[in-house]
Amino acid sequence: MKLNDVIHHITPIDETILTKAQDRTANLIMPPRAMGRVNDLGEQLCAITGTLKPATDKKAVFVMAGDHGIAAEGVSAFPQEVTGQMIGAFLGQMATINALCNTYGIDVCVTDVGSIHDLPDTALSTKAQFFQRKVAKGTHNFSTQPAMTTAQAEQAVMTGFEIASDQIQKQGLNLIATGDMGIANTTASAAIGSVITGETPDVMTGRGTGIDDNTLKLKTEVIRKAIAKHQPSPSDGLDILSKIGGFEIGAIAGVMLAAAYHKIPVVVDGIISTAGALIASTLCKETTQYMIAGHQSVEPGHTKMLAHLDLTPILDLGMRLGEGTGAVIAMNVIDGAAAVIKDVATFEEAAVSGG
Amino acid sequence: MKLNDVIHHITPIDETILTKAQDRTANLIMPPRAMGRVNDLGEQLCAITGTLKPATDKKAVFVMAGDHGIAAEGVSAFPQEVTGQMIGAFLGQMATINALCNTYGIDVCVTDVGSIHDLPDTALSTKAQFFQRKVAKGTHNFSTQPAMTTAQAEQAVMTGFEIASDQIQKQGLNLIATGDMGIANTTASAAIGSVITGETPDVMTGRGTGIDDNTLKLKTEVIRKAIAKHQPSPSDGLDILSKIGGFEIGAIAGVMLAAAYHKIPVVVDGIISTAGALIASTLCKETTQYMIAGHQSVEPGHTKMLAHLDLTPILDLGMRLGEGTGAVIAMNVIDGAAAVIKDVATFEEAAVSGG
Repeated sequence: MKLNDVIHHITPIDETILTKAQDRTANLIMPPRAMGRVNDLGEQLCAITGTLKPATDKKAVFVMAGDHGIAAEGVSAFPQEVTGQMIGAFLGQMATINALCNTYGIDVCVTDVGSIHDLPDTALSTKAQFFQRKVAKGTHNFSTQPAMTTAQAEQAVMTGFEIASDQIQKQGLNLIATGDMGIANTTASAAIGSVITGETPDVMTGRGTGIDDNTLKLKTEVIRKAIAKHQPSPSDGLDILSKIGGFEIGAIAGVMLAAAYHKIPVVVDGIISTAGALIASTLCKETTQYMIAGHQSVEPGHTKMLAHLDLTPILDLGMRLGEGTGAVIAMNVIDGAAAVIKDVATFEEAAVSGG
Repeated sequence: MKLNDVIHHITPIDETILTKAQDRTANLIMPPRAMGRVNDLGEQLCAITGTLKPATDKKAVFVMAGDHGIAAEGVSAFPQEVTGQMIGAFLGQMATINALCNTYGIDVCVTDVGSIHDLPDTALSTKAQFFQRKVAKGTHNFSTQPAMTTAQAEQAVMTGFEIASDQIQKQGLNLIATGDMGIANTTASAAIGSVITGETPDVMTGRGTGIDDNTLKLKTEVIRKAIAKHQPSPSDGLDILSKIGGFEIGAIAGVMLAAAYHKIPVVVDGIISTAGALIASTLCKETTQYMIAGHQSVEPGHTKMLAHLDLTPILDLGMRLGEGTGAVIAMNVIDGAAAVIKDVATFEEAAVSGG
């Protein structure tokens, strides 16, 4: 399938079901909308899935990994080899996303979309879901040249779409999330956020894995210069992705297109996933209706990026890890939202007096 | 057992384990404390339970129900009969707390500590855990007389303690929560909050199930006059409970004492549960170390009450239902916190390069 076919297949959420869901909420045995955001989420699930009985029992997080040429500029607190090491940790069930998903019963599906590292065969014998789908071994350093070609940008997006789409169909997934791994990817994400929201790199750039004041200044300047040099078009996701993006960010955008394509909700993680969400929104505006923001990252640009997408985060726990960790914690709240709209009785059903 | 025996048995959390847990967090394969509040919670679990491998797999919410004589003053948007009807809904698995707990695998344990309503035998044949332990059929109207005697206040607290303590031991519970049902109980809770925090009833009083401006004015005035009339001692939980409290609020305080007694964490729900937490804190200061605030209620007094207890809510979802609903949603975040500190590998274990 081509990207254009995907985009043309995506339609808005069901406003008729949304109204019916709001009617049901109004009759549940509770004071009017006393569950607040949980009521809102339940109704969004109905509108996304086209049913008043939305299921969220088959969940997966798609963790997309890739390396970044821009790491050579010294913008990260961690060495580039960590991307490959962390892919190994995901497959060995040793990382935070594994610990959380094992506890919550969520499938972890890891894809190498462009790590510089080749995994040893032993790592590939793991039981974890893993896809080796490198677009290339890392992006180019976008301070000197475009990160990738436009064809590679489209390939990255379609890789994410295809992997998520296959799993949605094979496993019958009804709630998915995105996650990321890639040393220096907050640099690419802040750059994307800056171009699409129109905010300056000063506002958008944060400390990522924990850089000091001088490195933050350097990182901000690297982003400012790259945007000035490449002049990406704010409304053209593939142009932005090719000039200042990353393979895993493109793949994340593809996962979001897959959610909208199959009419299931997708939970957006932190700043990297939100950069992917911004790319997806430029490719197909309706995609944002299928998105739920999992959490507020401590990265300063995240607030602006979510606001641009008109998304309100479910959680605010001072997190900044990525991997999909904020998204999968938020999935529990979404499970609750589905349960409330499906399973709570109305005043009439329960013979409870109204207010 | 007597209340004094309970209080004397409670000791502070384990500061040695807390330090060890912080050391472990620092070595997990993530940037320093990148899981934010989730890291904090994991460490608190270790310190509460005295182990670096805290389990949270056996969970229950103790929903305490009671009626309030103060309802006669017209302070609620719902009629008093709703308390008994909602107990019926809990036992019939029809309420919001049931929908959430069935989804999350949490046991719901309902106690009638003082409803005016007698349940029909059919309701008692339910599979839900239910305890009929009325201290009396509703409290007195505290605008004219004390809500209950001091002996009844102690009985309410010990009822909560005994029920929770029994279930903790029988079921091996390792994470519990409190919830409430009682028409007009935000009036009693705001009054308790006002006495213990020292804030005025203007600041503490909210719209509960949804009262209008005039009723809010009336409710605030009822609370102001009752405090002026009874002059409860801010440091004496039983005095406060007997003069302006409620049976279910006393029982909730008892559940919190049981958590501290057995050294397991207790998740505090909204304003009613937090009123119970305030009562428990006056009876035994160390109890607050075992508490985790589940969520921020929209009731205006809640922020002040949590601040007085030095608790920071996990969630802020615009909720105001009670029943324990905010607490049980937050339990999922606590599950994640336990998983992170127990199951994530260290840099050394995973052979990942440090920053």
